[in-house]
Amino acid sequence: MNKSVERWRESPILEYLAELHREIGAMQDGAVATYIPELAKADPNWFGICVVTANGGTYEVGDSRQTFTVQSISKPFVYGLALEDKGRADVMRKISVEPTGDAFNSISLDPTTGRPRNPMINAGAIAATSLIEGKTPQVQLQRMLLMFELYAGRKLAVDEAVYRSESETGHRNRAIGYMLRNFNVLTEDPMPVVERYFKQCSILVTCHDLAVMAATLANRGINPITGKQAIRGEYVESVLGVMGTCGMYNYAGEWFYDVGLPAKSGVSGGIIVVVPGQLGIGVFSPLLDPQGNSVRGIRVCDALSRHWDLHLFNRPGLGRSAIRTKATGVDFHSMRVRTPEESRVLSTCGSAIRLLQLQGNLTFAAAENVIREIMDGAEATEYLVLDFRRVLIISESASRLFHATLVKFAEANQDLVFCNLDHLPTLRRCMKAKFGSRFDEQFRVFADNDAALEWCENRLLAAHLPHAIGQERVSPADYEFFHGLTADEVQVLASQLTNRTWNAGEVIINIGDEANALFFLASGLVSVVLPVAAGQRKRLATFSAGMAFGEMAVIDHAPRSAMIVADTEVSCDELSVADFEALGTTHPPIKIKLLENIALGLSRKLRKANRQLSVVE
Amino acid sequence: MNKSVERWRESPILEYLAELHREIGAMQDGAVATYIPELAKADPNWFGICVVTANGGTYEVGDSRQTFTVQSISKPFVYGLALEDKGRADVMRKISVEPTGDAFNSISLDPTTGRPRNPMINAGAIAATSLIEGKTPQVQLQRMLLMFELYAGRKLAVDEAVYRSESETGHRNRAIGYMLRNFNVLTEDPMPVVERYFKQCSILVTCHDLAVMAATLANRGINPITGKQAIRGEYVESVLGVMGTCGMYNYAGEWFYDVGLPAKSGVSGGIIVVVPGQLGIGVFSPLLDPQGNSVRGIRVCDALSRHWDLHLFNRPGLGRSAIRTKATGVDFHSMRVRTPEESRVLSTCGSAIRLLQLQGNLTFAAAENVIREIMDGAEATEYLVLDFRRVLIISESASRLFHATLVKFAEANQDLVFCNLDHLPTLRRCMKAKFGSRFDEQFRVFADNDAALEWCENRLLAAHLPHAIGQERVSPADYEFFHGLTADEVQVLASQLTNRTWNAGEVIINIGDEANALFFLASGLVSVVLPVAAGQRKRLATFSAGMAFGEMAVIDHAPRSAMIVADTEVSCDELSVADFEALGTTHPPIKIKLLENIALGLSRKLRKANRQLSVVE
Repeated sequence: MNKSVERWRESPILEYLAELHREIGAMQDGAVATYIPELAKADPNWFGICVVTANGGTYEVGDSRQTFTVQSISKPFVYGLALEDKGRADVMRKISVEPTGDAFNSISLDPTTGRPRNPMINAGAIAATSLIEGKTPQVQLQRMLLMFELYAGRKLAVDEAVYRSESETGHRNRAIGYMLRNFNVLTEDPMPVVERYFKQCSILVTCHDLAVMAATLANRGINPITGKQAIRGEYVESVLGVMGTCGMYNYAGEWFYDVGLPAKSGVSGGIIVVVPGQLGIGVFSPLLDPQGNSVRGIRVCDALSRHWDLHLFNRPGLGRSAIRTKATGVDFHSMRVRTPEESRVLSTCGSAIRLLQLQGNLTFAAAENVIREIMDGAEATEYLVLDFRRVLIISESASRLFHATLVKFAEANQDLVFCNLDHLPTLRRCMKAKFGSRFDEQFRVFADNDAALEWCENRLLAAHLPHAIGQERVSPADYEFFHGLTADEVQVLASQLTNRTWNAGEVIINIGDEANALFFLASGLVSVVLPVAAGQRKRLATFSAGMAFGEMAVIDHAPRSAMIVADTEVSCDELSVADFEALGTTHPPIKIKLLENIALGLSRKLRKANRQLSVVE
Repeated sequence: MNKSVERWRESPILEYLAELHREIGAMQDGAVATYIPELAKADPNWFGICVVTANGGTYEVGDSRQTFTVQSISKPFVYGLALEDKGRADVMRKISVEPTGDAFNSISLDPTTGRPRNPMINAGAIAATSLIEGKTPQVQLQRMLLMFELYAGRKLAVDEAVYRSESETGHRNRAIGYMLRNFNVLTEDPMPVVERYFKQCSILVTCHDLAVMAATLANRGINPITGKQAIRGEYVESVLGVMGTCGMYNYAGEWFYDVGLPAKSGVSGGIIVVVPGQLGIGVFSPLLDPQGNSVRGIRVCDALSRHWDLHLFNRPGLGRSAIRTKATGVDFHSMRVRTPEESRVLSTCGSAIRLLQLQGNLTFAAAENVIREIMDGAEATEYLVLDFRRVLIISESASRLFHATLVKFAEANQDLVFCNLDHLPTLRRCMKAKFGSRFDEQFRVFADNDAALEWCENRLLAAHLPHAIGQERVSPADYEFFHGLTADEVQVLASQLTNRTWNAGEVIINIGDEANALFFLASGLVSVVLPVAAGQRKRLATFSAGMAFGEMAVIDHAPRSAMIVADTEVSCDELSVADFEALGTTHPPIKIKLLENIALGLSRKLRKANRQLSVVE
């Protein structure tokens, strides 16, 4: 066994990355960047790959913990901070978002406005750096560094040697700074901004950091390792937007065509790739192609995009319908055990109740599907239950569609109720925002479809039956387990009964209790419930007057296996197990009839449970 | 009721579009294109919006059936046909995919190779037109028209007046044609190609057509209305790729930043937008902005992207885990009713069996999650059941991950089995491609988790119990329902039994049969099954020798409600209902003991069913 366990320590995902690292590591094409002298010291053999998923799964091979300077990969992150600090409109006035097709160090200012074409070229990046808030340049730099630390999930530092090297040779960027000043894109002295930009490019990161940073963007701005927010979710799409069209210098079009993912590369040899909602990729290899992108890095990303189906435009269709099952109140009932009269009404009029069980990711198109189904049957529906138990996520737009539908139901005097929503706060928030103070009254939510169905059934029954439900009082002669007994036999048994009462909410039987009596319900309602996860209870059945409970434990002598709770004030007649057993010798005919009735009751419950099992599965 | 039904005819989605149409229709900015004289005749008030979902839901408002010429919106579709005809590599040699930031009619050839920068500018589009296969220009044109008809789902025609107008004034495009010839991008006479390009631009479409064409791309190339394939799925990502970076002229960057979706506009005022996997949008309003895009069209798309959360980079995180439930063989059993000895083994060693029920969309990142969970528990697992019942879709990459995992299990002598895969052909195809002729032997698939669990349990029991399962023969004294009877009483009952035998596969009891006997199983295995959807059967229980069945119908006198099928050769002792009933007067003590045992059996089954219900829900 040990050997097999050993094998199991290697995930097939890690194995694939190791194989890719071996294969692509053999390539020696490209050259280390030399335009900043300090960068030329990089070892051309360095090669690391790291993948971090949006919920923190981490896979890394090769030199994934080797530090290098972040360079241009800093640009989208600083742009994101500028968006947070100034808002989208103000930033857009300073920096456009059009791809240029030009090289990374081209000046690319709009000839009339001087606005840099996009924030991924140096001009746009320097403009973004200038937009970071802070009373002093020192504070601005500190805020920027803090932002990178939130993304990476660890303390970071500037490589002072690289910074000095950048500063000593960065005349082109100084020229860009003054051009921006000339057009009033920068309104302050451009030199401190350019120096801050050099420091920003000289922050030391690892390939693992890059993957965590990318995963943070993939996870709507929340670092999946630390759980901390690095950027507000609403700005993530803007950062990814410019990475998508402008992230790979003048290779951006081909990149998006082949790899189909927002990305950013840097001249020190790093590439980050973001797969929204799924994962982040960091690759590091300093050998660059003429456009300034890591040769091995591009190969790795291309392979991962293909092998893992990550291309954003390579998406399957809608898949299975958002509607898992449809049922009406004729074939799907609540666990409430109904009297024959009530059952008759439900089987005649139950089609006015509809249940739709939804599933999967309720994006706009999936919700549209549900709305179409609702409308197809709206004519005959008086009560509609939407069960969200198997819904994994719901979007804002889908939530708004359900709100609009609920309003239509209310206008038409039809009831639309919801259940199993605990895991979907988006829908509740949307309803609250729309309904305001009328929220509780308009938006009816039940814990599960059983409770929702019972509510609908009760409303339907109240409309069709003259007398109130569950209010009658039954005498022993009418107990269902007494069926077939003569008047004398009823008399004999009744004399052995003890009457007890409970208030609503009281526990009549607890799990594990010794089984010492059989209960006949004279008046009120009781429910059989099971505790399920996290303090919740699942109802197995509800009984009304005339019915019996507690017979299973009497038969098999096992401790009670479910709770019985009084739903209303309850009055019961108890028959002790000792008296029940003694009947076998004192009154065999009574015992036989009781046993037949008990077996009959059990077999009815079993049939119902089996039917329920075949529906839910 | 009628009034409410009336209201219900209007979907909230259509209402929203109508409101948007009213609001944006009030805008009068922009001007009708005049560079082709015939286009200047368009009514500036025309305004239509149409949305078609990837499964065919259609919503349209305004002038959605007004015809106009398709113009540049033809470009991505013809590019797609060129990819199908020549393959990606050959097309890439002729046409690059870099965005230019230049205006729509710029010549934009690479200065050294003459390769057009992308297929969305006229130069690239004319090059793409030249790549369409066909022996004669006429055939080439016909094939192109046929392709558009597959996308639109109806017959289409060229507007000859617009075509003549384009041809009479299209000197710039003729110049482009000769430039392409000069660089050998075109190797034939460029003039017929340019004429074909004019015809292509003059095809008459409606806003509804545009939405269907876009929905076809959203649905991986299959027209959601006709079900016909308009382009092979593998090329859809390439078409969407160039639309994403180059589809909106020199507004492409800002478009992708704001709207975040692949799109294409045309000078006649149309825009198509594709939301991969969800829907297609067509908008038509001839008032253009200076970049040549429909003013109202851009407003509509912007509003829809925001209101319906369609921005490709605005994606939620992973949502709920891909693992719905985890269980082991200790707390989750197959429906096979086990002997006390077998039950003891399963409760002692059952933790070697693990069941994972998966859910949602199994993309790469979701599958990674599953693999991590599998690995966490791999040490203690001998048998792993993966249940895909609630999985909606599975990607190729996720399928490959499960293949790699299966190989690892096999190497470690552990068993990994699959169930509920009928709706996921991708996984099966992937396994078949990987395993080849060893497919059936390596890839073990069961209809449901009950069958898979039974197989695992049987293997586990075979390893822990000396004797074979289900082979013994039991005499009446050991029948479970005879428990507590004296030897004399057994004798009395045994004399009333009739023995019958069945072959494996035979039906012993059918649904609806009259209940005229109680069965005691002397040898063999029988299963209680229910027919569920589409010829499938769901097993409720399996009984082995010594157990009884058919008691429920005997108790409640209802017709049989489930099938009983012989799994092996079966020998049963029957007790007729008449004999059973008569025992009440002839032998009350026997009747009481039988009834007690029947009630005991029913209560055990009910407890099991209730337990099962609380696990599955």
